[in-house]
Amino acid sequence: MRISELGRDSGVAVATIKYYLREGLLHEGRRTSATQAQYDESHVARLRLVRALIGVGGLSVAAARDVLEQLDNPPETMHDLLGTAHRSLGPAVDEEVDTAAAEAVLERLGWRVQSADRQAVRQLAAALDALEAADFPLSEEAVTTYARAMRELAEGEVSGVPVESREAAVRYLVLGTVLVEPLLLALRRLAQADASLRHHGS
Amino acid sequence: MRISELGRDSGVAVATIKYYLREGLLHEGRRTSATQAQYDESHVARLRLVRALIGVGGLSVAAARDVLEQLDNPPETMHDLLGTAHRSLGPAVDEEVDTAAAEAVLERLGWRVQSADRQAVRQLAAALDALEAADFPLSEEAVTTYARAMRELAEGEVSGVPVESREAAVRYLVLGTVLVEPLLLALRRLAQADASLRHHGS
Repeated sequence: MRISELGRDSGVAVATIKYYLREGLLHEGRRTSATQAQYDESHVARLRLVRALIGVGGLSVAAARDVLEQLDNPPETMHDLLGTAHRSLGPAVDEEVDTAAAEAVLERLGWRVQSADRQAVRQLAAALDALEAADFPLSEEAVTTYARAMRELAEGEVSGVPVESREAAVRYLVLGTVLVEPLLLALRRLAQADASLRHHGS
Repeated sequence: MRISELGRDSGVAVATIKYYLREGLLHEGRRTSATQAQYDESHVARLRLVRALIGVGGLSVAAARDVLEQLDNPPETMHDLLGTAHRSLGPAVDEEVDTAAAEAVLERLGWRVQSADRQAVRQLAAALDALEAADFPLSEEAVTTYARAMRELAEGEVSGVPVESREAAVRYLVLGTVLVEPLLLALRRLAQADASLRHHGS
């Protein structure tokens, strides 16, 4: 199909498609002349994925490119793969953040992490810092409650990682991180709304 | 204290403090001459809160101003207050998104929401859409598992809303949304790392 048809099929404006082509988010079509190229279903599928990452995923173009590169060239071990997925998906965290409090939480929970997980440790440290700085510290008990809930979910998520191919595993880990996070936060807010109506009345 | 001391005590650069003053994120000091003003502990506390919102909270200056306005001028009912907190905290969601699938999920879960919660419903709809668009749809069972976990957390969160003052309640709801969300996501990633090490070995 031509680029105009690709635009119609994917719902993405032609100018945006050209931008994604320049930025390397979308693979080139099969060139049929100096100014024309043919696109196929693989381009439609890729465009839908790019829109999902940049739309609800909230990724920048650069971050989306990182994720797509991982999908195309998966790393070695399953655990590195998870770490790489987490790292490229942000949020950007100050490398200098003091992780002592975060490590104490992990120690208390008995959770093991490796060097590939430093980004997530820093993310936890920054979150604890921000709560402290805003004078809104959580009790150990509250943190443990959140941690237990997340651990229960993670069990199911990790045991569901497809093992038939590395590509399928990367796809599962990357999309399961970037696309499930907004779902989880939306459900938390709606659960709060429902609970608030039950507790405080309408 | 003078603005230079305020900078030292809060750890925020003087140029940034002046920017926050201009943008209305920080209240004016007590003017002592045409070019000088005196600041106090209330300015230090506010600056720490602003840094937490814009830092880990990841809010824009405009969104931080909205949140601070809510802290300063709380809405009427507890439930409106929760809705307003959620709304101003984003993420920005297309108002035109089709919410039928999201409403079906809420119906299945038996969760009640009100007009104040439309933003969160649209957020859920957009998250479901993105999963679908990326060809990574979740089973009903998976969505229900996430929802149950969030409901359990929300019960504790909502029953913990301080009732002694509206200001305290707003503070709890706003900070509990914006500062706990990054904590929750960091814990989810670390729980996945721990589970991945246990399941797939190091």
